[in-house]
Amino acid sequence: MHRFEKEDLKAAPPGTFRTQLPVRFQDVDAAGIVFFARIFDYVHAAYEEFLASVGHPLPTILAQGKWAAPLRHAEADYLAPSRFGDVLTIELVRAHVVETEIALGWRLTSDAGPSPRAVVQTVHAFVTLPRFERCAVPPDIVQALTQ
Amino acid sequence: MHRFEKEDLKAAPPGTFRTQLPVRFQDVDAAGIVFFARIFDYVHAAYEEFLASVGHPLPTILAQGKWAAPLRHAEADYLAPSRFGDVLTIELVRAHVVETEIALGWRLTSDAGPSPRAVVQTVHAFVTLPRFERCAVPPDIVQALTQ
Amino acid sequence: MHRFEKEDLKAAPPGTFRTQLPVRFQDVDAAGIVFFARIFDYVHAAYEEFLASVGHPLPTILAQGKWAAPLRHAEADYLAPSRFGDVLTIELVRAHVVETEIALGWRLTSDAGPSPRAVVQTVHAFVTLPRFERCAVPPDIVQALTQ
Amino acid sequence: MHRFEKEDLKAAPPGTFRTQLPVRFQDVDAAGIVFFARIFDYVHAAYEEFLASVGHPLPTILAQGKWAAPLRHAEADYLAPSRFGDVLTIELVRAHVVETEIALGWRLTSDAGPSPRAVVQTVHAFVTLPRFERCAVPPDIVQALTQ
Repeated sequence: MHRFEKEDLKAAPPGTFRTQLPVRFQDVDAAGIVFFARIFDYVHAAYEEFLASVGHPLPTILAQGKWAAPLRHAEADYLAPSRFGDVLTIELVRAHVVETEIALGWRLTSDAGPSPRAVVQTVHAFVTLPRFERCAVPPDIVQALTQ
Repeated sequence: MHRFEKEDLKAAPPGTFRTQLPVRFQDVDAAGIVFFARIFDYVHAAYEEFLASVGHPLPTILAQGKWAAPLRHAEADYLAPSRFGDVLTIELVRAHVVETEIALGWRLTSDAGPSPRAVVQTVHAFVTLPRFERCAVPPDIVQALTQ
Repeated sequence: MHRFEKEDLKAAPPGTFRTQLPVRFQDVDAAGIVFFARIFDYVHAAYEEFLASVGHPLPTILAQGKWAAPLRHAEADYLAPSRFGDVLTIELVRAHVVETEIALGWRLTSDAGPSPRAVVQTVHAFVTLPRFERCAVPPDIVQALTQ
Repeated sequence: MHRFEKEDLKAAPPGTFRTQLPVRFQDVDAAGIVFFARIFDYVHAAYEEFLASVGHPLPTILAQGKWAAPLRHAEADYLAPSRFGDVLTIELVRAHVVETEIALGWRLTSDAGPSPRAVVQTVHAFVTLPRFERCAVPPDIVQALTQ
């Protein structure tokens, strides 16, 4: 399984896919900062928007029922806390495609400054439905990720 | 649609179904108290445990695919805030069954004192699957609710 | 406490505040539709955006620590289920201001058709901080709500 | 930063701290399985219960305001999906203490069979409050983790 170096996720190459999300009132925890697991919720929202941007909206993928791409791995390094009021920019800064898997590297920054709040990596395994047999990553997703 | 008087939900009759849930670290909001919508998450957890206690665990109901009981209405009155560290007791204090609907009245208290934190009411409509036609409430649920 | 008639929340007067939110992958429940309590999460997101639009962003209000407006009551009527892939429009269709409270009426529709998915009402009580004594609704919020 | 081998988290040594949690109706996603980020919510619930079991309940730690242990890193390997109706057992199977950090290794299994659903690792950094300077892990937590 591919793993990115944490340092390689801290900068965004030109042409990076990005989206913005506000931290919601209910996303913080009893310590007053964004609950660590919410970072993964944000990254998944960005992943949904990325898929839509390359012509594969996730609701359509699920409705077609031909393939799915469940998570095999997810990890986050927390570099600075985020708080209610922050607007986060989530960028898809790296991608690595192997035959039946994609590894995606994400960076989260805020409008408050340039240093990243977190870097995240996710690995999705592509499988046919309903049998869950490994299958090749669809060509246009490969193309979008390797541009 | 049946609606309970708020005052009638503040006391629990003998034999009331009850369960306990801790407020989780991530259930609070940026004001430091339990986010208002989480109260409904807690009540649904109690509803799941009630259904299991009367022989109709919700996972089994869904797997059988014969009927469902989606929410038609939900409301909460917030009487005092709850915080991280509280252990909430959720009680099914009232029930009203009409032909194809049940109205349930819930009370939430904590280990910190007797006065309720919130009272909640939910109305579920019973429908056949997959056609979503109204159907009678199953007899053993009626019996459990009218004891 | 003010309560709107459910029917009065089904239509939006001209000039209504509105915002849009996509149903997220993780907002559904095991029955495959949006979990009923998430409707309140969506309405709170719209409330945050309404407050920002009238010059009172909630993060600023909390940081100032002079007053707060906790929920005293919340209720929803579910008219049709929402699903992953829906983009919901949330509108502030009614408001009722009393001295220290506001009642807000909300309508949720989708891009799939004109009939509402849900109508919601919320009642906020205004209190001073840190003593939680009832206080008047700030004049510019009154003005924004009564235009 | 310490990282456990994934294979080393698949078995539980004797005396492992464990707790159980049911998958809730609203924990699944639009693909019908537990949303990947909820696994971290479950692990944090287990972490709260572990802290309480060693005499450091998290609400008390936060109320005292002397130190905190924010997450520096979190990762999960997903080995099999979990579904509504599953009851998960979450076990603290490994721990590694360095001067100001703890790395915790978790295993999630279900009542449906012995093979793990997921393995998770979290790294907490201990800091003084309110200055967020690194500090030594409290001795009784060290002791509980190194037994």
